[in-house]
Amino acid sequence: MTVSLAKSIKTGIKSTGSTRGSLVTALRQHSSHHEAESSTQANHTISNKQLLYTTDSLTPGSIFFLPHGTRIFNKLVQFMKNQQTKYGFQEVITPLIYKTKLWEQSGHWQNYKDDMFKVIGNDSSKEEHVDISEEEEGLHDYGLKPMNCPGHCLIFSKFDRSYNELPVRYSDFSSLHRNEASGALSGLTRVRRFHQDDGHIFCELNQIDQEIKNTINLIKETYGVFGMKDTDIEFYLSTRPEDKYLGDLETWNNAESQLKSVLNSVVGETGWSIREGDGAFYGPKIDVLLTDAFKKKHQVGTIQLDFQLPQRFDLKYVAHDGSRNNQPILVHRAVFGSLERFFAILLDHYQGKWPFWINPRQAVIIPVNDSHIVHAEELHKKLSGDILGAGTSISPITGYNFYIDVDSRKETVGSRIKDAIQKSYSYIIMIGDKDIEKGTVAIRHRDDRKVNNMTPQEVYDMFIELEKNYR
Amino acid sequence: MTVSLAKSIKTGIKSTGSTRGSLVTALRQHSSHHEAESSTQANHTISNKQLLYTTDSLTPGSIFFLPHGTRIFNKLVQFMKNQQTKYGFQEVITPLIYKTKLWEQSGHWQNYKDDMFKVIGNDSSKEEHVDISEEEEGLHDYGLKPMNCPGHCLIFSKFDRSYNELPVRYSDFSSLHRNEASGALSGLTRVRRFHQDDGHIFCELNQIDQEIKNTINLIKETYGVFGMKDTDIEFYLSTRPEDKYLGDLETWNNAESQLKSVLNSVVGETGWSIREGDGAFYGPKIDVLLTDAFKKKHQVGTIQLDFQLPQRFDLKYVAHDGSRNNQPILVHRAVFGSLERFFAILLDHYQGKWPFWINPRQAVIIPVNDSHIVHAEELHKKLSGDILGAGTSISPITGYNFYIDVDSRKETVGSRIKDAIQKSYSYIIMIGDKDIEKGTVAIRHRDDRKVNNMTPQEVYDMFIELEKNYR
Repeated sequence: MTVSLAKSIKTGIKSTGSTRGSLVTALRQHSSHHEAESSTQANHTISNKQLLYTTDSLTPGSIFFLPHGTRIFNKLVQFMKNQQTKYGFQEVITPLIYKTKLWEQSGHWQNYKDDMFKVIGNDSSKEEHVDISEEEEGLHDYGLKPMNCPGHCLIFSKFDRSYNELPVRYSDFSSLHRNEASGALSGLTRVRRFHQDDGHIFCELNQIDQEIKNTINLIKETYGVFGMKDTDIEFYLSTRPEDKYLGDLETWNNAESQLKSVLNSVVGETGWSIREGDGAFYGPKIDVLLTDAFKKKHQVGTIQLDFQLPQRFDLKYVAHDGSRNNQPILVHRAVFGSLERFFAILLDHYQGKWPFWINPRQAVIIPVNDSHIVHAEELHKKLSGDILGAGTSISPITGYNFYIDVDSRKETVGSRIKDAIQKSYSYIIMIGDKDIEKGTVAIRHRDDRKVNNMTPQEVYDMFIELEKNYR
Repeated sequence: MTVSLAKSIKTGIKSTGSTRGSLVTALRQHSSHHEAESSTQANHTISNKQLLYTTDSLTPGSIFFLPHGTRIFNKLVQFMKNQQTKYGFQEVITPLIYKTKLWEQSGHWQNYKDDMFKVIGNDSSKEEHVDISEEEEGLHDYGLKPMNCPGHCLIFSKFDRSYNELPVRYSDFSSLHRNEASGALSGLTRVRRFHQDDGHIFCELNQIDQEIKNTINLIKETYGVFGMKDTDIEFYLSTRPEDKYLGDLETWNNAESQLKSVLNSVVGETGWSIREGDGAFYGPKIDVLLTDAFKKKHQVGTIQLDFQLPQRFDLKYVAHDGSRNNQPILVHRAVFGSLERFFAILLDHYQGKWPFWINPRQAVIIPVNDSHIVHAEELHKKLSGDILGAGTSISPITGYNFYIDVDSRKETVGSRIKDAIQKSYSYIIMIGDKDIEKGTVAIRHRDDRKVNNMTPQEVYDMFIELEKNYR
């Protein structure tokens, strides 16, 4: 395989989440090194104040999400799982290590090996059938997965498939590892371990249209939830490279014209740009770039058609006419892309002022003095929702769970309010004698000095409405 | 370190999820090899019929959870996350690979190395500061984590800690890898990659009592949800080994007497047995064995006190009296233990007849003929809950999501019902002309031929009640 092909695989197969590749090169042209550094610095500052994540030299490039960062991470994952459910995705949980034979079959070993971690049992006698020559050849070695696609192809290949179950859509939130140079690692954006909201769609050529449409809609809806405007989202279509490509010309032309017509219908004729010849050798793709509040562009979502992996894994389905040797098309797609990178974008975007629904500190209750602590605790239980509210019973599977703290330290109310604003609690709830008498609480938003009196039920209902509306 | 100490670490530190160790040896005495085999075989049979999981020789000992298996797995995780929230645990997301230096610090490298996978970048130039001597010594190698404790100790150590934030309770559902001999791998019970409902509590000596009490209560509540009787749960207290142990005698005596008094108060004096001298050298422990419907015993939950890791990681907190060098006690605890193994126990226990709340196939709708398909689809949307019911809007974060299928194949109603029972759908819902006219549906349980007429709202309310009550 030529170097240019190798590079094409390296940069193309799934550059989301990777810090290299042509897309990211393009991205870097938009954001200077200096900007990237200062943004990383800003992320660290917010994270240190809010205790969101940390790192350690014992595992460079792998993030430790602290409890409050994990809350945000989990909300992002749950958000996406629910949207994927609606779009017909089925989640799978797939292994992290696979023998090199798999990576040879997928082509990663030949072309992506240097970016992968190798895994070896310390005691090789535990592998079956290992003789010395095999050990020398490394046949009992594993690769730590940098992407989920080969695992999903394996699952697809294990069962007889028929047209009437297509599209088959797998989603996966596995840990992925890529061996970036340690010198280049930085914060949440250049990591070695990351997670994608990964999805693979196995479908027929005539189903691409609807699948791409769904994905673009989901991308726009999702970014919209985070208050990003349509004008901040750019779509790029990369088409067939002139010389080296896989699959026949007709399939390429058909696929590209479908992608163009989808883009025209969903984002409008002026809503996307073309990058002629910039597609991977295995298929055309759509990349999504997001411009943040600081005019910095980020590679986020991606939609890549793939005519190659289905061939390498010999994937087949029985078509409507009963014919057996039909090869599905594989669509790689991600909406957030790397969850770690999207987290970083959100840190920039909100500057730590998380909206209520995703805030790891949704409200704090401040009892005016010690005599109000009991009431504060009761209120805490009431406002926390169904999971904590279950008391001594088993908590339900489904229910609201709001992140509420009680600050009963012996500080003045004023200094506790100041501290709460510092920590970016969305709401600050005070409870004193008058409130208890009237059966209400005094509540204010972190960004608004106005204090309202509301009953606990009114506050709880407001919390539910805020979450439902992603506010 | 002597062999017996080494073995003690190897078998003790976290034998949950491992297929070796003294506990598991004890377990094997109860279940003969033959039984284990036939049970594994039975698991495979159910899994093959219900498409729950699969394996592949490209990654021996790692499970692929198929979509329907993933539904069960995720329900178990969500169940436990919600209970942990109630008991004050904070979830963290921690890296999978750590340099050998960490494993040396924790003691795993000296004593557990042969059971671990080593991870190496294929391109070692990507590591900073690697010179030839370091490469030879393997100082840039990583270990793939077999347990979460060292990562949690690292997090604890990164911040100044005060008595008033103890107990600090971290939970983690990370992938863990242990290099079991490939010949011993089998189904879900002997694996190389698994997940625990892992939790680590950092606390003061006088807090152990309440923490152990909470854990035992949660264990009993949890197993109760799955219909296991108190009489099927056995508790074993393993005490200080006579010769080799870490920490002072007073701490040991104090801790053991707390454990005994907790066991007496929560499970009664006759509810537990002692294994004198069988504790790990780093602390006493309580093991929980579950007897399944086939009288087979399984090691599931575990509670282990640890006086060693806090010392190895130099963990400290400021006490009430302002003194600085106080070392917290570490409690390792798991309720399910290995989620994969608990999954296997549930397969045995339910024989594929999952109760509604955890059934990956909760109901199937059978339109009597083609003219009823539109109604069946409407009903599907109505009964599926809030996530699918959101239609063209963004789906909410919190809401019910029932797994309902429509079977509109051109088969007789009778044969589709038979098929639904085969696949163990909890409920079978038929819809024909009369039903549409009356605004009701005809519904039956898989185990009861009696057909009831209910409105869609009544069915939906019943589904919610079933989930709420873990039925």
